[in-house]
Amino acid sequence: MSTTSIAPDVFITPAAMLEHWQGHRRLTRRLIEAFPDDQLFTFSLGGMRTFGEMAMEMLSMAVPMARGVVSGDWSTSFDREEVSRDEILRRWDEATEQLNTLWEQIPPERFHENLVAFGQYPGRAHDLILYVIDNEIHHRGQGFVYLRALGVEPPPFYER
Amino acid sequence: MSTTSIAPDVFITPAAMLEHWQGHRRLTRRLIEAFPDDQLFTFSLGGMRTFGEMAMEMLSMAVPMARGVVSGDWSTSFDREEVSRDEILRRWDEATEQLNTLWEQIPPERFHENLVAFGQYPGRAHDLILYVIDNEIHHRGQGFVYLRALGVEPPPFYER
Repeated sequence: MSTTSIAPDVFITPAAMLEHWQGHRRLTRRLIEAFPDDQLFTFSLGGMRTFGEMAMEMLSMAVPMARGVVSGDWSTSFDREEVSRDEILRRWDEATEQLNTLWEQIPPERFHENLVAFGQYPGRAHDLILYVIDNEIHHRGQGFVYLRALGVEPPPFYER
Repeated sequence: MSTTSIAPDVFITPAAMLEHWQGHRRLTRRLIEAFPDDQLFTFSLGGMRTFGEMAMEMLSMAVPMARGVVSGDWSTSFDREEVSRDEILRRWDEATEQLNTLWEQIPPERFHENLVAFGQYPGRAHDLILYVIDNEIHHRGQGFVYLRALGVEPPPFYER
């Protein structure tokens, strides 16, 4: 494999980062699929939110973050309606395509600029994007506990 | 802020990635600190591991991964001894310094090379490193559930 085309001060390229993120999103999709439909918006532990609410939050952050980074349009929907598991999965797949399309439109220098996401969260674009990915991993990990507590084996964490 | 010194195909630089990781490690440290000492290796949900075991796993991955990427020495300790919370925190702080030292020694092109971590996990170095960070976020998220179930308020996720 040639690595000579990669610039000297690169931990990861935008293309590899998108692939990494979409790998996480495939795993989260498998968790949503594995979650009993009738527990998605009812089951919780420790007084926390349901996994359905967390999944809706993920959807409200991923594409809206990418769109904001591309265009400065920071609109998103924070309403947390309860929809069926199939509808979440449908929106998930839609977001997968939108994310791919939007990502290509981000000028590479943009990742290093200071932005204010959603009108209230300042940071460099790469940190704001990592926050969205990390938030997904964080809440998915909580979904793993919910699923185990429900007696369901979650998908393997290492499989993307 | 000038961004002109950043090469064109960079999502994030090695220096910014280390800072991002250490931010996560500071949050995980706060979670370990908040966890009741007498529950660290006893409390669990859904038949899962204790948070103490997860924290010991994080320690067995972070510095050993960085050392392996630097030197090809993939030795690590997978024994999961039960130590006190103070001892975990002591090892955590030690690892923080070691990680900073090792990171500086990673030649930037190394992040894009294919390696076999710990003699058994193949991948590009950046993906292997992200796996360690993601694994920490994943299990820390589970620690958040444990802590809530124990009636303890976890530190805020967004604070690094």
